[in-house]
Amino acid sequence: MSLEEAGHYPVEKFLIAFALILVSAKIFGALAERIKQPAVLGELVAGVILGGSVLALIPSSDGMAGFQTFHLLAEIGVVILLFEIGLETNLADMVKVGPASAMVAIVGVAVPFVLGFAGVLAFEKYGLIQGVDPSMMTLIAITAGATLTATSVGITARVLSDMNKLGTPEAKIILGAAVIDDVLGLIILGVVSGLIEAARSGGAGITAAGVLIITLKAFGFLLAAIVIGNIVASRLFNLINKMRVRGALLLFALSFALVFAYLASLVGLAPIVGAFAAGLVLARTNQVNIIEERLKPVADVFTPIFFIMVGAAVDIRVFNPFVRANIPILMIAGVLFIIAVVGKFVSGWAVFQKGINRFVIGFGMIPRGEVGLIFAQVGLAYGVFSSQLFSAMTVMVMLTTFVAPPLLKIAFARNGGQASEGGYV
Amino acid sequence: MSLEEAGHYPVEKFLIAFALILVSAKIFGALAERIKQPAVLGELVAGVILGGSVLALIPSSDGMAGFQTFHLLAEIGVVILLFEIGLETNLADMVKVGPASAMVAIVGVAVPFVLGFAGVLAFEKYGLIQGVDPSMMTLIAITAGATLTATSVGITARVLSDMNKLGTPEAKIILGAAVIDDVLGLIILGVVSGLIEAARSGGAGITAAGVLIITLKAFGFLLAAIVIGNIVASRLFNLINKMRVRGALLLFALSFALVFAYLASLVGLAPIVGAFAAGLVLARTNQVNIIEERLKPVADVFTPIFFIMVGAAVDIRVFNPFVRANIPILMIAGVLFIIAVVGKFVSGWAVFQKGINRFVIGFGMIPRGEVGLIFAQVGLAYGVFSSQLFSAMTVMVMLTTFVAPPLLKIAFARNGGQASEGGYV
Repeated sequence: MSLEEAGHYPVEKFLIAFALILVSAKIFGALAERIKQPAVLGELVAGVILGGSVLALIPSSDGMAGFQTFHLLAEIGVVILLFEIGLETNLADMVKVGPASAMVAIVGVAVPFVLGFAGVLAFEKYGLIQGVDPSMMTLIAITAGATLTATSVGITARVLSDMNKLGTPEAKIILGAAVIDDVLGLIILGVVSGLIEAARSGGAGITAAGVLIITLKAFGFLLAAIVIGNIVASRLFNLINKMRVRGALLLFALSFALVFAYLASLVGLAPIVGAFAAGLVLARTNQVNIIEERLKPVADVFTPIFFIMVGAAVDIRVFNPFVRANIPILMIAGVLFIIAVVGKFVSGWAVFQKGINRFVIGFGMIPRGEVGLIFAQVGLAYGVFSSQLFSAMTVMVMLTTFVAPPLLKIAFARNGGQASEGGYV
Repeated sequence: MSLEEAGHYPVEKFLIAFALILVSAKIFGALAERIKQPAVLGELVAGVILGGSVLALIPSSDGMAGFQTFHLLAEIGVVILLFEIGLETNLADMVKVGPASAMVAIVGVAVPFVLGFAGVLAFEKYGLIQGVDPSMMTLIAITAGATLTATSVGITARVLSDMNKLGTPEAKIILGAAVIDDVLGLIILGVVSGLIEAARSGGAGITAAGVLIITLKAFGFLLAAIVIGNIVASRLFNLINKMRVRGALLLFALSFALVFAYLASLVGLAPIVGAFAAGLVLARTNQVNIIEERLKPVADVFTPIFFIMVGAAVDIRVFNPFVRANIPILMIAGVLFIIAVVGKFVSGWAVFQKGINRFVIGFGMIPRGEVGLIFAQVGLAYGVFSSQLFSAMTVMVMLTTFVAPPLLKIAFARNGGQASEGGYV
């Protein structure tokens, strides 16, 4: 008989919502591929349709019963995705493209920041932003610039994986840049929070020492994770491989990724950065092939939940131009979106290496995802962003997410670099 | 950087709790096997240790942040387990052992009910139950008897699977009996709720027609699921197999199980009964071997969560005999436990077939699990059970769960039937 009627989110509803997510992810993924688009685009669209602003068949926003559960499962999904990608990535190759990754990350953070800062000041000058304290404009512009900086690598990683392009140097540059990007984002968030704090309370704000500590913690974690991980992992997994309990190898590998994700979030990095590092480490063990093989079906179940939930968070009602209040939001969002695209696109030209498909890198860095939303939420929570500017930021983030898969597809179709020749490293 | 600080259960905590569950399930499972016990016993013990009454490292009771998420994941775990077992089960064999299963189910429901009813009346006579309205005693005894009836097959199914005994006729009789048992439990719950309702409000209570409708719905679902499922599934899965999207077959099969589990819970049956039926149906498709192979790693991730959460729900403090209030609870629980064990154990002798290991069947039917707890909760919610009697019921349920794995291990070691000869059907 049916259990746990007392719970907030009934088991029955969870069972059917879970089934709906899995089935529609696959159907829309297949439809997307029919029209020569990456499957992940179909999953995002499926999420929009299942979400609160269309059919409302799954919990899509905080406060709805069951939302937290799907949100946590989505997080596991993207953690497993980046872990899987780490498993397929050679650490030495990553180090080799390190300088290129660093250039891409720095240019891709600096350009959107400057353009975003200037753009928001221009909005105010031309009266698009109204009802804000003029003395706050510099801070608003800085926060907006910061919101435009951080790349969310989940979408791009999935497209690269779907297209079998993870072996290309472009993929490695993008992944490395995403890791560095996350560290830069952390530093910027620290600085911006400090500035806001200082502006509001007249306090000390952020100090150079504070920024240094954040930076050292983040790089320290990455270095320690990879160095200590490399020493421990081989012995540990040789030992685990001797356990005869069903599924031991898979579960220990998955737990390894979860622990790294946890540690990353403790130092303020995204959990996916930790999961990626865990994958890099386990890629060097003797058991990597068995782990990859057993992980695949688990990834198949969890990762669509992430992309469906990203889609479900989209409120399509904000795109309705017949609602008067939406017009300034859409105008600001449109300009921010152009800045967001251009700002990251130019980072492809920061690579000096020859034979690289710069379009792939430029387009691959475009999606902002949840990291941008954190900045926007900080801005909103501290009263720096008006709800109008916050909505515009959200729309910008959505657009960057949806535009990346088709652009990457086009970029790979160009005969401009190794990636399009299918040249694996 | 770390996301979603605003949520009730932080992502970091979820990541590390998830890792802890997986790792400790495997370690304690391996330790249990070292001392020649089924792995599931180790997982249950790991759950107790991680749970609220010992280390409190995972959310173990309703109302704790994150509990709902793990509770729902546990439900998916046991749904996948029974689905997997259904996939390995031949429908024709199930029909063949049908009469034996029915006998086991009926005896295994009737005997504990009668003994439980008589036992509770005896408790009152000898003053163990105090402070209850004497006019309510019949109703209390009926509810207690009902609580003792329903088998929870998850534990036994897992032990049979771990020991590679799913092919034995004993396993099929147990699985069939568990399905029939669930239908009987549903009818009894309907009758008992009706009686309680009638006693409290003087209303009409349950009618013969009401009972008939419950019964028809339950059997109707099972019949329809298997007949329609058989017609649709082969064509559907041949079609899905042609989709080239990664993981499509696995996700559709899993969704098929989730939908069946959902439909079962709609007619009032346990979700696992639906999942088992889904497995029986898909066992007859051409893709069953691929589905089983891909499902295995997913099951490895989800099923330990179920057994860990069952263990985590145990409050070991109630076993402390130095707390005065625990003594009558433990005495009542002890007697109820003996009734629970004996009442199901005799059901093994309801099988007339020759060469059957009756100990395996008798022991296999012992675990009560969550189904018994629902009865106890109904009793508590309507004021029929005192908190003392409710606690005793809970302890009885725990004990039956923990005692079954070692008893099954012993039963298989006896040379009394086909099961011990490893004779697969």
